[in-house]
Amino acid sequence: MTVTIKDVAKKANVSISTVSRVINDSKPVSDEIKQRVLRIIEETGYTPNPVARSLVMKRSQLIGIIVPDISNFFIGEVLNGIEEIGKMYDYDILLCNTYGELNQELRYLNLLKSKQVEGIIFMTWELREEHKEFFNKEDIPIVMINRDTSDFNITSVCIDHHQAAYEMTKYLIEKGHKKIALIRGWKENYVFGVDQYNGYAKALQEHGLEINKRLIKNCQYKLEVAYDAVQEMIDEDILPTAIFATTDSMAFGAINCLIDNEFKVPEDVSVVGFNDIKLASIYRPKLTTIRQPIYDIGAVAIRVIIKKIKGEKTDESIFTLPHELVERDSCRSIK
Amino acid sequence: MTVTIKDVAKKANVSISTVSRVINDSKPVSDEIKQRVLRIIEETGYTPNPVARSLVMKRSQLIGIIVPDISNFFIGEVLNGIEEIGKMYDYDILLCNTYGELNQELRYLNLLKSKQVEGIIFMTWELREEHKEFFNKEDIPIVMINRDTSDFNITSVCIDHHQAAYEMTKYLIEKGHKKIALIRGWKENYVFGVDQYNGYAKALQEHGLEINKRLIKNCQYKLEVAYDAVQEMIDEDILPTAIFATTDSMAFGAINCLIDNEFKVPEDVSVVGFNDIKLASIYRPKLTTIRQPIYDIGAVAIRVIIKKIKGEKTDESIFTLPHELVERDSCRSIK
Repeated sequence: MTVTIKDVAKKANVSISTVSRVINDSKPVSDEIKQRVLRIIEETGYTPNPVARSLVMKRSQLIGIIVPDISNFFIGEVLNGIEEIGKMYDYDILLCNTYGELNQELRYLNLLKSKQVEGIIFMTWELREEHKEFFNKEDIPIVMINRDTSDFNITSVCIDHHQAAYEMTKYLIEKGHKKIALIRGWKENYVFGVDQYNGYAKALQEHGLEINKRLIKNCQYKLEVAYDAVQEMIDEDILPTAIFATTDSMAFGAINCLIDNEFKVPEDVSVVGFNDIKLASIYRPKLTTIRQPIYDIGAVAIRVIIKKIKGEKTDESIFTLPHELVERDSCRSIK
Repeated sequence: MTVTIKDVAKKANVSISTVSRVINDSKPVSDEIKQRVLRIIEETGYTPNPVARSLVMKRSQLIGIIVPDISNFFIGEVLNGIEEIGKMYDYDILLCNTYGELNQELRYLNLLKSKQVEGIIFMTWELREEHKEFFNKEDIPIVMINRDTSDFNITSVCIDHHQAAYEMTKYLIEKGHKKIALIRGWKENYVFGVDQYNGYAKALQEHGLEINKRLIKNCQYKLEVAYDAVQEMIDEDILPTAIFATTDSMAFGAINCLIDNEFKVPEDVSVVGFNDIKLASIYRPKLTTIRQPIYDIGAVAIRVIIKKIKGEKTDESIFTLPHELVERDSCRSIK
């Protein structure tokens, strides 16, 4: 039989509200009574109903995370950072996967709120007006990942995608490459797709190189689509000497297509990626790529949201973490 | 200002319980009153408090999923199946990641219950008495994935791991291999580690081949550990002609180690995996492996739990789905 708060009160010979005070540490209770109630709780094995309790306490020690694709490698590694730091601060995490569908995203935002999460870390492929409306309307701490939120009042954790894409393109040019394809995830509002393109274009222009629209492929972050994009270049006989894919997964798609067409990487074509997911050093050839501090991005996001929950001041509204170009085996000099 | 159920009742000139009946469709209300209440709800923009509502309704349309490692490829693909079918039946999913830690698992089991999920799909590396205690005590539908639950009353969805390991080992023997290493995830109670070993041993024995303990490596499902296990065999000069890893990730670890030591796969050593995660056909050489119907495992698990939630009868307590040996490029005949 389930022990109720009533049973505990009766046995301890105090009122229900006194038991509640002891459990929730909400108002002062004499030490003697407190010890008695705690002893009875232990003896009876009473556990307070957490829902009822969270309604009273307004503290759930719960943070919600909404992501567009749980099986995306980058997102999986961000979650590691979020969860480890969350645990350190004794927060539990409820995860929701949306496939990037707006309706599902709005549903989960509302659901998590109704489940008394204290804050939400939100990731999406496309940031829309409907999201911003939710953020404006609801009084709940929100942190976004990998988003430029400078035009509205939401904290974000990311790297400088423009600068990173610029550096990688410059690196390829300095290795002697003049024809460089860009395979990017892109759709209106997509994560930093425009910034990355601008970085790429800036490097080419600085070195007096032409931007060839046929070498710029929009791929929605899918390995298979990157594969097809490279096949297209092969079929059209416009294969460049280097391919810059703006995710590692897309770089794998590009390399696979090249290998399947009997090109060698990097002997015939250099391929570089972006993110430095774990797979980038597992894959052969090991991938030259831009390292995002993926774990740290998750760790900072949850640290910031916990600060917000506790009403502590946070310094910035966009946290830009450092990136790094990692040289491995998938790119060679052709000078 | 938030509109409450009281405001709606007042404006519609009915009792609060009538409004509640209309919202929850719980007891008959005259059509005229129903229309009036619905009109007022629309006019005022009233939304029922979902927590309070789920307390009353006991229907949350919510299923909880507990997994040991969200970034594990196999698990990511299982989740796809769970979520797509869940959506079809209009269920939302709350995901919890435990890193396989018992305390975290018990915490999330209790948390999900307190958040009114209607059922839980539970995955763990190690099934313990504490889990079984929870299942016995709590009256909530549970389905497990990839577990032999024949000794207690919980439904499970899996494949026949013994048979699959037997078939793969037999396949290698028929390709002329006599020295076959087994790299398996293993710890007491681990997912089918014993069954897989028995299948492997049976095939060897049937063909009069000796079981060499030095070629059996216990790896806790980690790519890096599989890498080290193969390095050990190289260092001890006992490298076999074939390696059977019981997850694809461990097979990648084995192949990487071989490549880094300048062995060729499959020319010098054949390597086969288990699971057929997406990466198995992305990796080069493409991996010969046992295909688990990973998506279907997730799909069946959620279908079964929805049936349980609705009180429908389900036929079996262990659902064994078909597996398949997929021949690709990482294994060759040496006859």
